[in-house]
Amino acid sequence: MSFINSQIHLVSRPTGEPGLDNFKQMDVAVPELLDGQVLVRNHYLSLDPYMRGRMNEGKSYAQPQPLNQVMLGGTVGEVVASKNAAFSVGDQVVGMGGWQHFFIVDGGQRGVLQKVDATHIPLSAFLGAVGMPGVTAWYGLVKIINPQAGETVVVSAASGAVGSVVGQLAKARGAQVVGLAGGAEKCRYVVETLGFDACVDYKQHADVKSLSAALKIACPNGIDGYFENVGGTILDAVMSRANAFSRVAMCGMISGYNGEPIPMSAPQLILINRMKFEGFIVTEHMDVWPEALKELGALVATGRLKFRESVSEGLASAPEAFLGLLKGRNFGKQLVKLV
Amino acid sequence: MSFINSQIHLVSRPTGEPGLDNFKQMDVAVPELLDGQVLVRNHYLSLDPYMRGRMNEGKSYAQPQPLNQVMLGGTVGEVVASKNAAFSVGDQVVGMGGWQHFFIVDGGQRGVLQKVDATHIPLSAFLGAVGMPGVTAWYGLVKIINPQAGETVVVSAASGAVGSVVGQLAKARGAQVVGLAGGAEKCRYVVETLGFDACVDYKQHADVKSLSAALKIACPNGIDGYFENVGGTILDAVMSRANAFSRVAMCGMISGYNGEPIPMSAPQLILINRMKFEGFIVTEHMDVWPEALKELGALVATGRLKFRESVSEGLASAPEAFLGLLKGRNFGKQLVKLV
Repeated sequence: MSFINSQIHLVSRPTGEPGLDNFKQMDVAVPELLDGQVLVRNHYLSLDPYMRGRMNEGKSYAQPQPLNQVMLGGTVGEVVASKNAAFSVGDQVVGMGGWQHFFIVDGGQRGVLQKVDATHIPLSAFLGAVGMPGVTAWYGLVKIINPQAGETVVVSAASGAVGSVVGQLAKARGAQVVGLAGGAEKCRYVVETLGFDACVDYKQHADVKSLSAALKIACPNGIDGYFENVGGTILDAVMSRANAFSRVAMCGMISGYNGEPIPMSAPQLILINRMKFEGFIVTEHMDVWPEALKELGALVATGRLKFRESVSEGLASAPEAFLGLLKGRNFGKQLVKLV
Repeated sequence: MSFINSQIHLVSRPTGEPGLDNFKQMDVAVPELLDGQVLVRNHYLSLDPYMRGRMNEGKSYAQPQPLNQVMLGGTVGEVVASKNAAFSVGDQVVGMGGWQHFFIVDGGQRGVLQKVDATHIPLSAFLGAVGMPGVTAWYGLVKIINPQAGETVVVSAASGAVGSVVGQLAKARGAQVVGLAGGAEKCRYVVETLGFDACVDYKQHADVKSLSAALKIACPNGIDGYFENVGGTILDAVMSRANAFSRVAMCGMISGYNGEPIPMSAPQLILINRMKFEGFIVTEHMDVWPEALKELGALVATGRLKFRESVSEGLASAPEAFLGLLKGRNFGKQLVKLV
């Protein structure tokens, strides 16, 4: 059996906002499998803010995405051919399949391809609430913020793949949970469907002062924990309401990904309020994944953890969907459906 | 026996830089002791950057210094009269005696007045290396930075009461230690007397870029731990050289004490480098004091921990000495000798 593989490559690096011309789609033949290899057909591709960081050449926490190669990205799919005893045709798997229809991996490399059990969990959820975004939420909330019952936890990008899980996990631990999201529809979803105590529409607030005033109303007891997905003026506003001994999990700073660094206005508050800030990358904490996935899988399978997906159709739609993600146009976990 | 007590009061709050007119000296009679009280004659008054923060009215980690009352401050001295069985005339004690010659305390209040053994340690050292500055250094270094042998630790205000102890404790733990200090004389002292591996004279560097380049030379393996006493452009420069998983103990931000907040230019580095920032106030961690003081006392008594004092003579010199401290004019722990 021979396959034609469509791929999307990064062909130039953006300065500032990326555009469609940074990407190029092309078709290549899928080579024959070698011993030990597995061929996977990707069903869903995950689009994530971290990809913007990798499009830059400069120093970051990860190697830059190479030019003229297929864009990296997490995928779920199905094994369509295997020369590896550990994988059979029909197995459902999660891996770093990239922006393409097919990918070949050495099935013996540890952790590169994971079988998943989608009996009670939708396959796409392994890219979201029961995948990297879910574990990211779990790590920052449980290991850094560690909320105590009655404390107030604030989450930015609250309707997104990570933020929505952070808030629901914090609620389950007895915290007061306040989201930040862009627009009335997202805010309504965060409160009514996800069960947050309140949600502030940051688009209604042009400056730090206005946003800080809104947070004062939403968080009458101040802020004890903040899960940072955004950065910029939102971080400044949250810091203005931070309590003594508050914790900030620095997970993403999407507002700075396009290359304009956004200063923190009042770093002295870290001292004045004896705050703790901690940046983290969830793939560096593989030891917590089993514990986190166990809790997340059980919550999703029993319907107690809600999530929402924004699904764009077809590989060719990936660049446009990715640019939309960077502008906050998605509503829930951004996926690309490939079959 | 009756005494006249000279005191210095805060009589107005500074906007920006404080001046001599914010302070006023006056004489009052020392009242008769009540049962349980102790009268102490202060020998040395400690001047510390935190006092500037308390001169402001706004929210900080401590209550503001009240207007028209004696300035608060740590002191060492000798008991000159006692109606408390736990203290005898002649006892050497450390306490919060304030900017004055005498003070009266309820000797029964826990932790308010501590007897010290100055047999092998100079009395003034209980305000420095074997006092709050020493424990501050110990806490930030041991509990937050926790340097591993071979890591690089950077300390700002390296010739000061806190910074000098941080560096020597880090050296004792096998770290490479680089100081930041203002001027060639202080830098020479930091390297030659305190034994740091290098010291960068920040006054030779007009901007972040230049300071960052100097740090690159002084710290060829990057920076794993930073003890922050200063803030502002120095913090930006250190962050530009921070390694993955580096830790920043936020102890003081003297550059911002006069009311102009100084932004942090690139907070995204906290995420990119998975850094940890932690602000702390040593008086909130009384549980570590015995362990810290034991190590510090042993090091001072055996001459292995060096320190230096800047002693101004007489209570009336305190305001001028304090203003000098805020400008970095002191060289070592700033004290006022009162007897």
